[in-house]
Amino acid sequence: MLKLFTVGPVACYPQVLEAMGMQMVSHRSEEYKTLHIETVAMLQRFLETKNEVFLFSSTGSGFMEASVRNCVTKKMLCCVCGSFGKRYAEVATANGKQVETLEVPLGEPILPELLDKKLSEVPDVEAVSITHNETSTGLINPLEQLARVVKKHGKLLFVDAVSSMGGTEIKVDKWGLDVCFSSSQKCFGVPPGLGIGSVSADALKKSETAQNKGWYFDFKVWEKHQKKQGTPMTSVVPQIAGLNRILTVIENKGGKASFFDLYAERNSRIREGVQKLGLSMFPKSGHESPTVNCIKSPAGIDGLEVYARMRMDGFELAEGYGTIKNSTFRIGNMGYIPFEDIDAMLEALAGVLAGLGWEI
Amino acid sequence: MLKLFTVGPVACYPQVLEAMGMQMVSHRSEEYKTLHIETVAMLQRFLETKNEVFLFSSTGSGFMEASVRNCVTKKMLCCVCGSFGKRYAEVATANGKQVETLEVPLGEPILPELLDKKLSEVPDVEAVSITHNETSTGLINPLEQLARVVKKHGKLLFVDAVSSMGGTEIKVDKWGLDVCFSSSQKCFGVPPGLGIGSVSADALKKSETAQNKGWYFDFKVWEKHQKKQGTPMTSVVPQIAGLNRILTVIENKGGKASFFDLYAERNSRIREGVQKLGLSMFPKSGHESPTVNCIKSPAGIDGLEVYARMRMDGFELAEGYGTIKNSTFRIGNMGYIPFEDIDAMLEALAGVLAGLGWEI
Repeated sequence: MLKLFTVGPVACYPQVLEAMGMQMVSHRSEEYKTLHIETVAMLQRFLETKNEVFLFSSTGSGFMEASVRNCVTKKMLCCVCGSFGKRYAEVATANGKQVETLEVPLGEPILPELLDKKLSEVPDVEAVSITHNETSTGLINPLEQLARVVKKHGKLLFVDAVSSMGGTEIKVDKWGLDVCFSSSQKCFGVPPGLGIGSVSADALKKSETAQNKGWYFDFKVWEKHQKKQGTPMTSVVPQIAGLNRILTVIENKGGKASFFDLYAERNSRIREGVQKLGLSMFPKSGHESPTVNCIKSPAGIDGLEVYARMRMDGFELAEGYGTIKNSTFRIGNMGYIPFEDIDAMLEALAGVLAGLGWEI
Repeated sequence: MLKLFTVGPVACYPQVLEAMGMQMVSHRSEEYKTLHIETVAMLQRFLETKNEVFLFSSTGSGFMEASVRNCVTKKMLCCVCGSFGKRYAEVATANGKQVETLEVPLGEPILPELLDKKLSEVPDVEAVSITHNETSTGLINPLEQLARVVKKHGKLLFVDAVSSMGGTEIKVDKWGLDVCFSSSQKCFGVPPGLGIGSVSADALKKSETAQNKGWYFDFKVWEKHQKKQGTPMTSVVPQIAGLNRILTVIENKGGKASFFDLYAERNSRIREGVQKLGLSMFPKSGHESPTVNCIKSPAGIDGLEVYARMRMDGFELAEGYGTIKNSTFRIGNMGYIPFEDIDAMLEALAGVLAGLGWEI
């Protein structure tokens, strides 16, 4: 069995896997309704929001499509600092919207002053998308400050929190996030197939008059079914049960702050270990992600080769992504990862790099 | 633990539940690729098709939305004989398409001559949707003959096979079905969250020029990733592993014909048992579904009350659906149902009906 240091799907907590093996219940039964409202309430506490929280029968990308369809009539601004920011722009275009982009070089963050300037230049956009944690480059953007800028300009704010929600703080109401979404298979350590997202009253209002928004991801249809303690189509019952289980574990073990501390500890243990081997991080210093370390592969060594050799040693890291596929590799710290596995992984990495001719 | 005679999610086979508890693998890993291509190949054999078979990270309803977005420019015809036929029309309208409907009274099937006549009256529709097995009324439509009519008129054919695929024969290529889809949580006895559907070359060709079709359900994006042995967004790994497991079991135990025989045997055991109690079926004789028995609640007895009392006895049936909520109740025979449970359920039903004053 490979030890997973992936960036999603990540290794699941044993309690979650146990929940995944449950026998089914009907998604219209009392048993499901209880599970549904309990899970939604725990997520609202976790995200510090009174907004609706929907449990989509899709991955997080379903929320990208939903945000664009429900809340953009003509034009939006997509902040791009890597492949998943680009994905947002692609999804918006595929849905017939005009897209402005604010793009920075790979490894650099979106900074508030840049966004402020850009929004002054394109005052006609209705919404702004921000990738909170760019999984492809291992970089985190200063969401709270960026949100303040977006709200100053009076725009709706969509946050792709796919690889940050559950791993680092997000205060939906205080920061003013209109659509903020993630997936089950990242920081919560649950298998894939479930989209998790909060939707503000302003976003719902915009949806009321949206044309041609489809059925599957229609926020108003979701809102209607939420009142009936369920989902429009069949709910992804096992993943919701798994999410319920891990949220319960978190609440019982000191709450979300302890969980974030655990992730931060793993993250720095990996980063320091890698730096001790003489390697450096891909993103600009001070903006490294708390959930994914993206590491520069040393000159002359192909990142894909590091990935492949680590697999042979029993560790599944993540390949570099997009244009930096060969020049980087990534080590995730989400999901179920015992500390002793981190140490073993770092030892294996030292061996692999030495085998590829790397001298510290 | 309730014994499930639901219409989805249904009780899962023990082998499937075991597979659901697996530790994750990355959806870009060699392990996943093997699982993916193996599952797709088994489905192609099961459906007797050379068409692409996609494993959607959504429920079956995602395929409704996809068929409409990818393959209808302006106008389609929806055949409606119950709530799920109506759902198709609703989805098409929500996606900005003009919809013609061919509607028959509840409990009656769509017949080939009716469809032929209707298609002559609306020659400008691009596609036709048919609900193979209408879950809400427990009725099966004569798909092979209907398909022949649709093809005679040269239209694309979308088949909602949500509660039939896996439970009764479907020959995709021979019958000429362009989009034919189902969900994991019905006849295959796998938990919900996975959409399963075949897409023909003609449907893919139509998608090439479709405008504003979005990203999440874009058949051309799916086709591109299928070549890379994966899915555009994260794959629903546990449900795919569960589906793989049950398809393997079916192949090893005499193939699909034996599986259909098993479902037919359960189905008639339930129907005959119910008829012995003096009750009758809701759909017109000769058109009863092989996977869902929809039963008329006797005069003066509320179907919802039958459902509620059966639950108290430990059996979860399904409530009536839509406008016939109170006048019917449903007993599904999909998923994991040992024969002794059928006998126990029928005995409990006799007791519940007697308690409600029903005399044979």
